[in-house]
Amino acid sequence: MNNYRFEDLYEDLSVSFEETVTEEMMDAFWLISGDENPLHMKKEFAQSQGYKDRVVYGMLTSSLLSQLVGVHLPGKYCLLQGMELKYLNPVYVGDTLTVKGTVYELHPSVKMAVIKALITNQDGVKVVRGKINVGFLQYEDE
Amino acid sequence: MNNYRFEDLYEDLSVSFEETVTEEMMDAFWLISGDENPLHMKKEFAQSQGYKDRVVYGMLTSSLLSQLVGVHLPGKYCLLQGMELKYLNPVYVGDTLTVKGTVYELHPSVKMAVIKALITNQDGVKVVRGKINVGFLQYEDE
Repeated sequence: MNNYRFEDLYEDLSVSFEETVTEEMMDAFWLISGDENPLHMKKEFAQSQGYKDRVVYGMLTSSLLSQLVGVHLPGKYCLLQGMELKYLNPVYVGDTLTVKGTVYELHPSVKMAVIKALITNQDGVKVVRGKINVGFLQYEDE
Repeated sequence: MNNYRFEDLYEDLSVSFEETVTEEMMDAFWLISGDENPLHMKKEFAQSQGYKDRVVYGMLTSSLLSQLVGVHLPGKYCLLQGMELKYLNPVYVGDTLTVKGTVYELHPSVKMAVIKALITNQDGVKVVRGKINVGFLQYEDE
């Protein structure tokens, strides 16, 4: 786990990691969200809508942004303030996603960083992009 | 499950539902997101930061918005396009959250609706607010 402080960050600093979406994650997201929409639950319905299989919940995919800011950039001292997301293309179970975060703006007067996020699949297709506003917890030696 | 079509929606139409956050949901979100930040995992760390207990992942709370649009408003034909969220106050395990969605804007030329969302806890404290852009799947009788 990284533990960047606001003062450690600089524009264009970036991190990335990969995760593969599993059936187990789909079940877990259904449990959390209570979203039983057939696009995510029923292959036949999704196919009738032109998708090749049931579609992974957009908000499951974007849950990886919680790891992005909470573990990687800035990591330990992250305090999530807000985000703006666009869902660009469908994700399917078995897809391996690359999550990339880049420091986009730094606002020293309010100790807030804007992290630009991009999630792509194994074919390089952009599936989610966004901007995340993060503040900072108290550093432990202060 | 509701199945509002774009043409059925009107400004100020609203729906709401309640969910209680459980330990099981926290475990499930950890599995999905891979976010092992100590603010969410360790009571002692969270308390050292001034919180009364470990803090529920912001993106777990906002996962309820997947149910809001995928089940309730508009429901079955929902196609999530994007969202803008602000995290306003901490949520704790055991909190009962009320999720309210209201039709805020309708854009007929692109068949897109903006749903305003507000999540409050059992004390009426606002914890998340946002705006969600939804498009529509193909209606089954078309």
